Amino acid sequence: MNAFQILPGVGPKSAQRICFNLLQKNKEGALKLAEILKQACENIGECKRCRTLTENELCRICSSGKRNAEQLCVVETPADLMQIEQSTDYSGTYFVLHGKLSPLDGLGPNELGFPKLVDILSNEPIKEVILATSSTLEGQTTSQYIAQMCAKAEIKATGLAHGVPLGGELEYVDASTIAHAFGSRETL
Amino acid sequence: MNAFQILPGVGPKSAQRICFNLLQKNKEGALKLAEILKQACENIGECKRCRTLTENELCRICSSGKRNAEQLCVVETPADLMQIEQSTDYSGTYFVLHGKLSPLDGLGPNELGFPKLVDILSNEPIKEVILATSSTLEGQTTSQYIAQMCAKAEIKATGLAHGVPLGGELEYVDASTIAHAFGSRETL
Repeated sequence: MNAFQILPGVGPKSAQRICFNLLQKNKEGALKLAEILKQACENIGECKRCRTLTENELCRICSSGKRNAEQLCVVETPADLMQIEQSTDYSGTYFVLHGKLSPLDGLGPNELGFPKLVDILSNEPIKEVILATSSTLEGQTTSQYIAQMCAKAEIKATGLAHGVPLGGELEYVDASTIAHAFGSRETL
Repeated sequence: MNAFQILPGVGPKSAQRICFNLLQKNKEGALKLAEILKQACENIGECKRCRTLTENELCRICSSGKRNAEQLCVVETPADLMQIEQSTDYSGTYFVLHGKLSPLDGLGPNELGFPKLVDILSNEPIKEVILATSSTLEGQTTSQYIAQMCAKAEIKATGLAHGVPLGGELEYVDASTIAHAFGSRETL
């Protein structure tokens, strides 16, 4: 029961329910879960180039010859990478920071893989870096930092558009987003 | 108890709690509420020009001489108007639709006050119409309809920027918004 409480969103009660359920009704599934979990921990590491999670040296995207080598999208987490893959038709490659600049948490340029990013920027034929970090304070600081690196390397840096989310009622949008969306309104 | 259930979010249980609380502890407040509610219902109507709620013939904004007469912001509800007033430095005037085009609910051009809007567009020195409707399907249909009216009157129509909300983690943004924000990315 204690072991299960490391899962996000699982407290003592849920852990107890999970344990009884597994032991009484699904020992087979539990054994399989244990085995897969062990395998995953042993085999999954970071892609040598883009730092996303993968079982191989290079991830599926970095090792594919079909991606556009002139675009690089910088994201905070492998989950963000997956979401962009699933919802857009982006065909370039990625770079995963595994976090955002946050000196108080011990996350500096080295932890976020900036040396490797500099390597990529100087050795690959990249023409555009798309900064898809969160639009939180730390996310924007991180993206500005990388934008400066791009400026030095004379590479164009772009950021996601900000504004009212699609399908949203104006009433539920926060004041700062409305102010921004109002300020950067577009001619129809 | 039944009467209180017309309030949004108040069901039988809450209504019961409200009633006991008012009658046992705060009869004075209840009487004041009753009186103010009656006054409000009798005195508050729609502004003759912009259709927002007001106690006078013209609302505070329409009767102020200090607003920019060249900008008109079209919103769905008086609540949207208040939010834009509070969160932006917009200094033009407004027009309240009280809904969005939705033929199935009986909301057509007449219910949304389009004849009055046409009047305003042809008689006032307006140079820009800002369409701040929701980014839902009906909201966008409504805004396109009005944009066409503006095109006929040779007035510039603009819409709020769409994209990732400020302060948002990418992980919690829906796929279509990400796709849009990615597609209309901006050079940093």
